[in-house]
Amino acid sequence: MTISSKSIDVGVLGATGTVGQELITLLDGHPWFNLTWLAASQRSEGRRYADAAQWRLPASRPEHISEMIVNACAPPGAPKLIFSGLDASVAGDVEATFAEAGHTVISNAKNHRMDADVPLLVPEINQNHLELLTNQSNQRGWSGRIVTNPNCSTIILTMALAPLLSFGLRAVNVTTLQAISGAGYPGVASLDIVGNVIPFINGEEEKMEAETKKVFGSLKDGAVRPHDVAISAHTTRVPVINGHTLMISVGLNRQAKIEELLRTFRDFSGPPKVATLPNAPKNPVIYLEQPDRPQPKLDVELNHGMTVTVGRLRPCPLLDFKFVALGHNTIRGAAGAAVLNAELMCADGLI
Amino acid sequence: MTISSKSIDVGVLGATGTVGQELITLLDGHPWFNLTWLAASQRSEGRRYADAAQWRLPASRPEHISEMIVNACAPPGAPKLIFSGLDASVAGDVEATFAEAGHTVISNAKNHRMDADVPLLVPEINQNHLELLTNQSNQRGWSGRIVTNPNCSTIILTMALAPLLSFGLRAVNVTTLQAISGAGYPGVASLDIVGNVIPFINGEEEKMEAETKKVFGSLKDGAVRPHDVAISAHTTRVPVINGHTLMISVGLNRQAKIEELLRTFRDFSGPPKVATLPNAPKNPVIYLEQPDRPQPKLDVELNHGMTVTVGRLRPCPLLDFKFVALGHNTIRGAAGAAVLNAELMCADGLI
Amino acid sequence: MTISSKSIDVGVLGATGTVGQELITLLDGHPWFNLTWLAASQRSEGRRYADAAQWRLPASRPEHISEMIVNACAPPGAPKLIFSGLDASVAGDVEATFAEAGHTVISNAKNHRMDADVPLLVPEINQNHLELLTNQSNQRGWSGRIVTNPNCSTIILTMALAPLLSFGLRAVNVTTLQAISGAGYPGVASLDIVGNVIPFINGEEEKMEAETKKVFGSLKDGAVRPHDVAISAHTTRVPVINGHTLMISVGLNRQAKIEELLRTFRDFSGPPKVATLPNAPKNPVIYLEQPDRPQPKLDVELNHGMTVTVGRLRPCPLLDFKFVALGHNTIRGAAGAAVLNAELMCADGLI
Amino acid sequence: MTISSKSIDVGVLGATGTVGQELITLLDGHPWFNLTWLAASQRSEGRRYADAAQWRLPASRPEHISEMIVNACAPPGAPKLIFSGLDASVAGDVEATFAEAGHTVISNAKNHRMDADVPLLVPEINQNHLELLTNQSNQRGWSGRIVTNPNCSTIILTMALAPLLSFGLRAVNVTTLQAISGAGYPGVASLDIVGNVIPFINGEEEKMEAETKKVFGSLKDGAVRPHDVAISAHTTRVPVINGHTLMISVGLNRQAKIEELLRTFRDFSGPPKVATLPNAPKNPVIYLEQPDRPQPKLDVELNHGMTVTVGRLRPCPLLDFKFVALGHNTIRGAAGAAVLNAELMCADGLI
Repeated sequence: MTISSKSIDVGVLGATGTVGQELITLLDGHPWFNLTWLAASQRSEGRRYADAAQWRLPASRPEHISEMIVNACAPPGAPKLIFSGLDASVAGDVEATFAEAGHTVISNAKNHRMDADVPLLVPEINQNHLELLTNQSNQRGWSGRIVTNPNCSTIILTMALAPLLSFGLRAVNVTTLQAISGAGYPGVASLDIVGNVIPFINGEEEKMEAETKKVFGSLKDGAVRPHDVAISAHTTRVPVINGHTLMISVGLNRQAKIEELLRTFRDFSGPPKVATLPNAPKNPVIYLEQPDRPQPKLDVELNHGMTVTVGRLRPCPLLDFKFVALGHNTIRGAAGAAVLNAELMCADGLI
Repeated sequence: MTISSKSIDVGVLGATGTVGQELITLLDGHPWFNLTWLAASQRSEGRRYADAAQWRLPASRPEHISEMIVNACAPPGAPKLIFSGLDASVAGDVEATFAEAGHTVISNAKNHRMDADVPLLVPEINQNHLELLTNQSNQRGWSGRIVTNPNCSTIILTMALAPLLSFGLRAVNVTTLQAISGAGYPGVASLDIVGNVIPFINGEEEKMEAETKKVFGSLKDGAVRPHDVAISAHTTRVPVINGHTLMISVGLNRQAKIEELLRTFRDFSGPPKVATLPNAPKNPVIYLEQPDRPQPKLDVELNHGMTVTVGRLRPCPLLDFKFVALGHNTIRGAAGAAVLNAELMCADGLI
Repeated sequence: MTISSKSIDVGVLGATGTVGQELITLLDGHPWFNLTWLAASQRSEGRRYADAAQWRLPASRPEHISEMIVNACAPPGAPKLIFSGLDASVAGDVEATFAEAGHTVISNAKNHRMDADVPLLVPEINQNHLELLTNQSNQRGWSGRIVTNPNCSTIILTMALAPLLSFGLRAVNVTTLQAISGAGYPGVASLDIVGNVIPFINGEEEKMEAETKKVFGSLKDGAVRPHDVAISAHTTRVPVINGHTLMISVGLNRQAKIEELLRTFRDFSGPPKVATLPNAPKNPVIYLEQPDRPQPKLDVELNHGMTVTVGRLRPCPLLDFKFVALGHNTIRGAAGAAVLNAELMCADGLI
Repeated sequence: MTISSKSIDVGVLGATGTVGQELITLLDGHPWFNLTWLAASQRSEGRRYADAAQWRLPASRPEHISEMIVNACAPPGAPKLIFSGLDASVAGDVEATFAEAGHTVISNAKNHRMDADVPLLVPEINQNHLELLTNQSNQRGWSGRIVTNPNCSTIILTMALAPLLSFGLRAVNVTTLQAISGAGYPGVASLDIVGNVIPFINGEEEKMEAETKKVFGSLKDGAVRPHDVAISAHTTRVPVINGHTLMISVGLNRQAKIEELLRTFRDFSGPPKVATLPNAPKNPVIYLEQPDRPQPKLDVELNHGMTVTVGRLRPCPLLDFKFVALGHNTIRGAAGAAVLNAELMCADGLI
């Protein structure tokens, strides 16, 4: 894996939205990728990026982006590698059009995630799912392809559970306390969330229950056989800017002592190949010892938002163990996940 | 039950604290009770109430309270019926002293809740547990007695589960999103909770798991046999002023359709005797139909904070059903619970 | 003034919006007014109110409102007295159409506030401005009329300053910390305000500066001569649900001692006629003695949100005095202001 | 100015508190300073830092600090250069003791700020005030000295006003919206500030009014003659973590056009010597063009929290101009200010 500096031109679909802005921030200064192309909806087409997009991140907008002209969401002129931060209302067709036209689409949208021939990729967990791309190519006749990352809550959940897979995951109950940035902009109305919690996020529980099984699924005859873990999700919205907190109970297939699980959390690292990717954190999962951690305010920025922190491992009177997990929903759970997926594919020679 | 207006003199222990202020507010204008006596720690003793206590409730401090002199926490001069909003650090001994001296102590403190001969009373659920008072009297030789209400989260949980008892409660998983008022004043530091959640409340999970079993327990030979439900609690603190939100999964002993449970929620009412008490809400549990309810901001004040609202009943892939519950932690979960307990005892002729 | 119970039929324009819901809540159970007619935008026309409007207030939606059918915003079938909670984008024309058709329109919209022949009414301050209606009738040839209340911040400011008018208002500097409910629904995006303040509200400073002068203006030859106070407003949005807090400095034309001003605040009441109106608070302005008051959380609901609280009166090194004021922006500053205006007109025999 | 890397040993008084933790974070990795000594109250003395201090910053605690032993707040063994993050209740005497014993104390406490012979230093504004140290030495007979930085709100105000000094500052009215981190830990109770604002901060208005005049004062005969600007401050607390927002009106002695002021804001930089200090931002003041900026959430971290941002410059109907300013209260307003002061003294050869 010797990839020359800034040698790969990339583009961003949905560049003016929240995920698009996070993608731009992560791609600015990326060692391999050279952001040369931005696209957004018709309203923004043909305008300077600085005019088309109201920048909403605390990090400053990269200087050279301001003058780039926003393109239409169509393949002509776009680089081969495309990140999609498109809204689900349009992502399905646009991403397929790009893949058909020969582009590699790294998507954060939900539309293709559960397609049988589309990898739902978390590099530390299921890099072998990239083998689905052969099927995708054969069945769809596309010269390009689509690779997706899971929903933000699912990524954080699967990262937190990954160290425990070797004990045999039998059952998972999870309640999320999700940050408002997960709903995009303008997203959640302030009157609905200041001094309040909303015990409902449309479609979120279904996504977590289905996507987790696919992420943990095994490849068999070129298809993903979903993991048979029983999983129940309760999802809520809380007045936190960034960081989804998950209260998790797990049932395991083999008996384990709490010390074994602690050791497994502490020793966990992704496959060696993944650990060397530019956006891979040294430790993808970190166990915090303090009794009241992790907390969004204190821990969400750890390793630039790419590490999932866990804590409070203790016995569960109902299943076997319970613990807390936290991850940065727009970095590890969205833009950072997409960039890491693209890095893995580059390292694998797929791009 | 014909109790004359304002015929029963009452006092409040811990009158300057948060629960004490809620008690004073509820007792002001109470049809039966006449608040004549206030007590607090040594620091406040002998001072005008208005000088000793910084009033922190949105409701105005009842006018006539301001001039009352704060007493020491000792029985001489105190009325027979005493509400205790004392902190757990002192409640144990002080309450016992009053009970020994012949007072009926209605306590919100944790100290005596799990004592075998002390009722952990929720009028709509286990009024028969008042029979424990006979044992208490015999064993302790007290001329008075202590009656307790559960922890705020436990009251809300047990009220939400009470309608389902007839289906046979086998298992409960609950995650709480608890309001800051539950921690008293000054309680949670703002730096710890503004824009944040804390996934830990010291001792809270243990209380919920143990107290729920006692509340639902059956009386046998003058003792409470704890309910055998398996229960696991995850407790968190969120930046909400009032109102604990609970995300609950339940396993039931007998198969049931979702419509049966809905009907049970809708039909639930306490025993007829309880329903007529001054602070009893017409409906102690109300099922809300909207997909994103209950929410603290919108629903916590329903029926003056004495009703527990539930919603989002749906199948649980892991246990049988899951739903959301909400209750006012300082009213239904503390001061209002205590006053309702006293009202029940009056109606029963125990006071 | 003997107005029979529920003898006056009234309607609400913009019934599905935030101000509309507040108006419905205040009119439900009103002793004089009988809410018989609701209107909203085309999208809601012809639907049951319960289907057309998502109810967003903590107070329950009045039962009988649910089944009312929402009308188009056109005069046929509407009662004579109409409250307008319409958005400024449409209020101008719709309100004029109703006035022309003979209706009395009590408006909360900004469109007609600064029209020379439209009263900008605050009953406690300038009830004589109703005389403008003669001009309005003559000039416009309408059989009905429009009466407006000021912007929410302006009402709170003018109420707080009203007691000081007798000292001669020379200069006012005011900085507001405004609640999110003032921006309607969905209004302020949560990502913009959770853990943040926004030091800008579009058009608000201009409104405060201009409207205050009109409210305090004197009637001369049938026209309002604006007050010549110099006034500078800084407006900000803060993460508070209800209640605008104002930090005010005033310069006075005649020298005064702080005790005189305190006495003036304490003695202030509106004209006797106003004080007897159903929604008039006993004390329209109340001075709080505590050093850290008023505060939205503790004081905004005083007298059902109709009283403006002030506090912290102290010398100003730049002008003469400075103090803090607080008012409920959707009650005293909007829906309650409109209802009080209508009550005054009824009492005056104008309706 | 050639200072070798890590050549100057430094210590921190009050190392376990909020300011102390910020100081440690800034000193870790400092190019000139080598943090070798920590001190705190008796409770912490002799313990490992990791045991004595609960680390409360999102940034990780520097690794090598954990094992350092906390000293008593007494000179023996302490390095010459001492940063004081002590609480005002003890800072006065402790700092004097260190100065007497020959240490240079860079203090963030209020105790000595207004002493006639103690510099109240803001490097970009009044570096010449360091001349006061000669008097301090002569009068007190100390072999060491004390240098202070102003209160957090004052620093942000003076930095925002500094570019306008050349127009002649006649009058200033300022209202602050201050972050909770300004009150330390535990500081503001969450029940007081979640969904609320507090229009009072004890002693803050007096500090801003007095300290601003000293910072802007001119040196005459070895003493500071306070600036004669008339200044009125209103201070409030809002639910923001970091970042004080100031709404400012200014009256100037000479007429100026808005473009002149804008140019002055844009051109402002400290003295060249200051601009090269390690913690000096390239631009100490930055004017933001967007109509709704600066905002704490988006702008407070600019240049690692050392730049004060301003915006919304517009005419003031009462004084001459009004605008908004924002600064990071614990960095630019406290720990960063202290470190910058020490850097200036090193560059001046005073350390």
